[in-house]
Amino acid sequence: MTTTDQHAAAPDAEGRAEPDALGVGARLSLHPMTSDFAPLILDALRAARRPGVEVVTDDVSTFLRGDEQDVVAFAQAAIASAAASGAHVVAHLHLSRGCPGEVSCAVDDSTLLRPVVLEPLPRSGQTASAHWALYPLDDGGPDRPGDHMAGILAAIEHARGLGVVSGTEHFVTRLDGDLADVLTAVAQGWLLVGREVRHVVSHATISLNSPSTPARAASGSAAAAR
Amino acid sequence: MTTTDQHAAAPDAEGRAEPDALGVGARLSLHPMTSDFAPLILDALRAARRPGVEVVTDDVSTFLRGDEQDVVAFAQAAIASAAASGAHVVAHLHLSRGCPGEVSCAVDDSTLLRPVVLEPLPRSGQTASAHWALYPLDDGGPDRPGDHMAGILAAIEHARGLGVVSGTEHFVTRLDGDLADVLTAVAQGWLLVGREVRHVVSHATISLNSPSTPARAASGSAAAAR
Repeated sequence: MTTTDQHAAAPDAEGRAEPDALGVGARLSLHPMTSDFAPLILDALRAARRPGVEVVTDDVSTFLRGDEQDVVAFAQAAIASAAASGAHVVAHLHLSRGCPGEVSCAVDDSTLLRPVVLEPLPRSGQTASAHWALYPLDDGGPDRPGDHMAGILAAIEHARGLGVVSGTEHFVTRLDGDLADVLTAVAQGWLLVGREVRHVVSHATISLNSPSTPARAASGSAAAAR
Repeated sequence: MTTTDQHAAAPDAEGRAEPDALGVGARLSLHPMTSDFAPLILDALRAARRPGVEVVTDDVSTFLRGDEQDVVAFAQAAIASAAASGAHVVAHLHLSRGCPGEVSCAVDDSTLLRPVVLEPLPRSGQTASAHWALYPLDDGGPDRPGDHMAGILAAIEHARGLGVVSGTEHFVTRLDGDLADVLTAVAQGWLLVGREVRHVVSHATISLNSPSTPARAASGSAAAAR
């Protein structure tokens, strides 16, 4: 559901196009559960700044525009920075690529479905627990129905190979591990499906420093959380 | 992505089936931005309890199983209760219905696509701002391609008619209004598409009491937020 990015800049000689022409980007929301949340959020977004990522923050979430590696690296840096405070932080990451959004999109398959390799993110030493969902918006074509479950299952298998799948919950897959590995699984799964499907979205709710995550829970505190 | 609910209980004489047979439910996460977050979350979930809604809370989010009206009413009550503290609260609501999840689903179209009417929720007097996304996982069929954008556009038009659409952002539609009206738009849009598409998911990030929402912002505080 995007109103802008309706132009499709010509791809370069290798078939690459700019992130805005491909509808690539993310929305990130950071929720430090502390009364001092505002400076923590602003400092985290500031610490994550890097060339190649446009950042637009409003009162609900932050829009990120850049190529896939840069956007995911921004998300890692921002989440890691907020969590470094020690506060319980939950982030919601919404990754999107492809067309159409709210408008039709003229980018052809050879450009839009061009494989994108996401290098594994560097480990941060911070442990995260996530609920992850992936939506291949696969309309199929004139000669074949879509199969949105095929992409979901392939992405989950890929994440299993990375060692971060710790359970299957209603509507989501649970991931646990180093924040870098969790985000790598989410983003690589999204890009895996993006080789086959023109419009792919993923959502992850990512929790750090929760007083109730089993491995961290002190005796008696396991119920005091979410 | 659900592992359970693989059984499809027989529909009743009017073609209705139980929520678990239809894969109907939600995940809700509540983020009060205050150091005193844990009792606020637990009290809010307790205050929202009602017959007909199964509630399973883990350290990342809370799973809700029940019929559509009850699940959405639970979400409203929980969010309203947490926000009544005056704290800045962000909720993430993930609604899902239909099959397949992680498994195939034997429910036939006449049961799964049976129109569900969601009565407008009672107004709470609390103002909310939301970023809303809707995913019709429309695989099409042997004789027609899917068209996931058609459902999205119809749901946005429906929300416009309710007077809560305040903008279109990258990847999401912005909704502002009474919490009840925002949630009604999100849930009615989801159910509108659920009359045509077997598997429909919606995500909304819902913010209340933000120091930086324009109408509430004190002079100079507009930048101190997200």
